[in-house]
Amino acid sequence: MANPTAAMLVIGDEILSGRTRDSNMYFLAQQLSERGITLCEARVVADRQDRIVSALNDLRAQYDHVFTSGGIGPTHDDITADAVAAAFGVALGIRDDARAILAAHYERTGLELNAARLRMARIPEGADLIENPVSAAPGFSIGNVHVMAGVPAVFEAMLASVLADVTGGQALFSQSLTIQRGEGEIAADLAELARACPDVSIGCYPFQRDGAYGATVVVRGADKGQVDAAMVRLGVLFPEAMA
Amino acid sequence: MANPTAAMLVIGDEILSGRTRDSNMYFLAQQLSERGITLCEARVVADRQDRIVSALNDLRAQYDHVFTSGGIGPTHDDITADAVAAAFGVALGIRDDARAILAAHYERTGLELNAARLRMARIPEGADLIENPVSAAPGFSIGNVHVMAGVPAVFEAMLASVLADVTGGQALFSQSLTIQRGEGEIAADLAELARACPDVSIGCYPFQRDGAYGATVVVRGADKGQVDAAMVRLGVLFPEAMA
Repeated sequence: MANPTAAMLVIGDEILSGRTRDSNMYFLAQQLSERGITLCEARVVADRQDRIVSALNDLRAQYDHVFTSGGIGPTHDDITADAVAAAFGVALGIRDDARAILAAHYERTGLELNAARLRMARIPEGADLIENPVSAAPGFSIGNVHVMAGVPAVFEAMLASVLADVTGGQALFSQSLTIQRGEGEIAADLAELARACPDVSIGCYPFQRDGAYGATVVVRGADKGQVDAAMVRLGVLFPEAMA
Repeated sequence: MANPTAAMLVIGDEILSGRTRDSNMYFLAQQLSERGITLCEARVVADRQDRIVSALNDLRAQYDHVFTSGGIGPTHDDITADAVAAAFGVALGIRDDARAILAAHYERTGLELNAARLRMARIPEGADLIENPVSAAPGFSIGNVHVMAGVPAVFEAMLASVLADVTGGQALFSQSLTIQRGEGEIAADLAELARACPDVSIGCYPFQRDGAYGATVVVRGADKGQVDAAMVRLGVLFPEAMA
């Protein structure tokens, strides 16, 4: 069985304007990779409903899961819930369970659950809430789309509960070998190895350390035997690296 | 007149797998916003020709400029040039001027210009080369698409010359000088030079080569005389680099 596929949609003008550096994409990529879910594509779009809807419909049709971050806060430019409802063609309204979560939170914190904050209880029809242990306001999953906050601590907390639900598919086995030679010198051998082992992916990540050129070669695959076999061939090609 | 629009396409499995954290998107976003170019969308795709071609054709049809990073190195999984040629429906071949740049670079550095490295001279028909003052291997612009390296220091150096062109300013003259000293050692002198030569831009691109820290200093300006004058002052500050 092939691994599940995923895409990420980062929503927010602040990323595209360079005011804020996104960190959720990097975090998600690592989390999915550990769980054998293949992140195939990521996109960043502005806070514009037409762009969010078209990116969302494009991605959710292509991949098993779509993870979004950003645009679910209390301000007027937080329009992700509206856009998701529009993309799925469902109603968007304040939901009692979401309102109760916010009411309890603001009562605890002594703040008023005003109209702006109440916007965060607007949930597309048919969605399941995603728990937010950090700041209460929930995310939601609808179909294969998981809608989470942009604030990294909240995104990461929400992602943990989403990933607990999402099936991880087969874990990917990976092994790596670090070779103290320039990428250009080992490229031809790696290309031949990639042809000889079509069922594993062979990545080459060059570095320069203490003045020496080197590269870490990473072999990934769903079948441990095939990964091991490719590593054996790799060791024959670069015996000095096995020392 | 509305601001020009732009999109970014980041190409590389290493970003989607979470192995590498992209920094070029954040850098580009800031550079474009300083220049009044609106970054409307960014995408990250894997090293797969079909995905690169479809994202590229989608983005170049929608926005005034598309900036790509990654996939133009010497290894078998560096397929950006192939994908760009396919997207534009033009031929891809080793170009003499690009080969000459690589040949000169590897002769200087005493490394062999082998078949893998020669891949970096493959340029789609009708493209213009983008100078790479850091590690020689050029990027290229074709139509409204600007294809640059993924290594941040190289991406940033290439972007500087691309932005000089696309911001519609006069063509910029550029000259560079490579100094075998750490960036920290030369920073104060460069800052003073920048104050003394306000009409040229002075970029510093650090590298580590054969165990030694160094930096390539690139002087750019619309007036060739002012660029030459700044280079003379630079030579006086770092006479050892003129040898």
